[in-house]
Amino acid sequence: MVDGVAQVAGQSQLTAIVNTGDDSDFYGLRVCPDLDICTYVLAGTIDARGWGYASDTFRCLEGLSTYGLDAWFGLGDRDLATHLFRTIRLGAGHTLDQISREMCAALGVDATLLPMTNDRVHTRITTPTGVLAFQEYLVKGGAKEEILSITFDGIETAVPAPGVLEAIAAASTIVVAPSSPIVSIGTILAVPGIRDALIVRRADCVAVSPIIGGRPVEGPAHRFLAGAGYNECSATQMARLYADVAGTFILDTRDANEVPAIEALGVQAVLRDILMPDRTQRARLADEVLAAVSV
Amino acid sequence: MVDGVAQVAGQSQLTAIVNTGDDSDFYGLRVCPDLDICTYVLAGTIDARGWGYASDTFRCLEGLSTYGLDAWFGLGDRDLATHLFRTIRLGAGHTLDQISREMCAALGVDATLLPMTNDRVHTRITTPTGVLAFQEYLVKGGAKEEILSITFDGIETAVPAPGVLEAIAAASTIVVAPSSPIVSIGTILAVPGIRDALIVRRADCVAVSPIIGGRPVEGPAHRFLAGAGYNECSATQMARLYADVAGTFILDTRDANEVPAIEALGVQAVLRDILMPDRTQRARLADEVLAAVSV
Repeated sequence: MVDGVAQVAGQSQLTAIVNTGDDSDFYGLRVCPDLDICTYVLAGTIDARGWGYASDTFRCLEGLSTYGLDAWFGLGDRDLATHLFRTIRLGAGHTLDQISREMCAALGVDATLLPMTNDRVHTRITTPTGVLAFQEYLVKGGAKEEILSITFDGIETAVPAPGVLEAIAAASTIVVAPSSPIVSIGTILAVPGIRDALIVRRADCVAVSPIIGGRPVEGPAHRFLAGAGYNECSATQMARLYADVAGTFILDTRDANEVPAIEALGVQAVLRDILMPDRTQRARLADEVLAAVSV
Repeated sequence: MVDGVAQVAGQSQLTAIVNTGDDSDFYGLRVCPDLDICTYVLAGTIDARGWGYASDTFRCLEGLSTYGLDAWFGLGDRDLATHLFRTIRLGAGHTLDQISREMCAALGVDATLLPMTNDRVHTRITTPTGVLAFQEYLVKGGAKEEILSITFDGIETAVPAPGVLEAIAAASTIVVAPSSPIVSIGTILAVPGIRDALIVRRADCVAVSPIIGGRPVEGPAHRFLAGAGYNECSATQMARLYADVAGTFILDTRDANEVPAIEALGVQAVLRDILMPDRTQRARLADEVLAAVSV
């Protein structure tokens, strides 16, 4: 979605507020998976698999594995520079938003990528066999286990990063990307102050469904929904979760039957093809999404 | 020299005591250049240039450079795993000698590689323009500047690493490698206790000249000698520096004219071809060196 909006509106017009609940330390290095994906997408250096640096090599990880370290999180060699640089800067007292600005400048990204908060928040997944960090559950465990509960440790005292509330207040249009409503968007909305800032911008805020035909377009969103106590995995359920912040909801034309239920929430429902298999389609959908609220 | 002795005596019979005064932190990672070279040599993974991991790539370093970090120290991607692993282990409270044993085990090295000390020692080079860390002087600056003085910060309180004094006491033969007498061997000898331990093993200790025809075989040893106050760069000067610890001195046949001066020091002088351009020559010289004291 970030790529589409950047294409349509221009990178300099885009501020993305990014989930940091998935951030983890690997080998003593701070890894921010969502910030990194957004940065690499906008820098044009994202790998075809959807994360990591394009065509990266894994010599360092192979070496760490030789030394007996667990190497399930696929950190590429070029990607490591990102985590190493971030770790050095954090150690020198810089904040995550400052570091994100530095990285964007270095990679020629004109958009502003803001962490939801500079404070540590840890998304924890409780399964029947224990409590896991988000990446452990998703990447190491392959999201196979049932989720009993989800917590965002540290969220109560987290403060929105500098610029986050200001960007929400100043934006001409706000797009809630079709990401996980629980462990991606949900985490951002749980940072004290962010949901309230969005509520007053509801008329200019449009959410895009991550669900088609009762199934997530990608990822195990249904598991996270269930883990958060929502047994329904549908576009309507998404619109319900965002009804207080997004006055407009884009759902797939294949889910047209759900329009009445969504409109009943007081949300404007707009039918579009929400699949974005390539850059052209991303721009097409972004254009439609931005148009949906500027009407 | 380490490779030659390992070939002749067998890795399991070799304990190397290694200089750590050149150790530096790069990007927050502990780099031990001399330990790494010895480890990679014995693992058969040393690069053809004489340091670093064989055929390494430099994607991470390129990335760090993109982020604006100084990238003059050529850390390869596979090599980074070594420094990252060491840094993690140090952070967990392990000592350098323990970590060296772990790395050797992981890489199939049967020799024992011991840091001269587990304590931090910093070789500092004072030039007309300032005080530099060893690697800054050698690698970043290309060893171009005159040296006014050399210090080993921390050496007074450094303690030999566990096993160092024991290895010196137990060795059948001790070889002082043809390395820098000031900033490599000299640093090791400056660790309190090591020189004294060698003095009592003088009869079984043989030093190999790093000089032929008044010039170092490799590296800027003459600069370090001058910086330490020795204006003579000769095999005899080397023998003089080691006279109290090495009862036998191997010098190149081209320096045969220096034999009387060396014998006058009470040191047995042995003429050999000290060049080791390849593995076969290393084994040949090691064989001759070990034979020189077992007579």
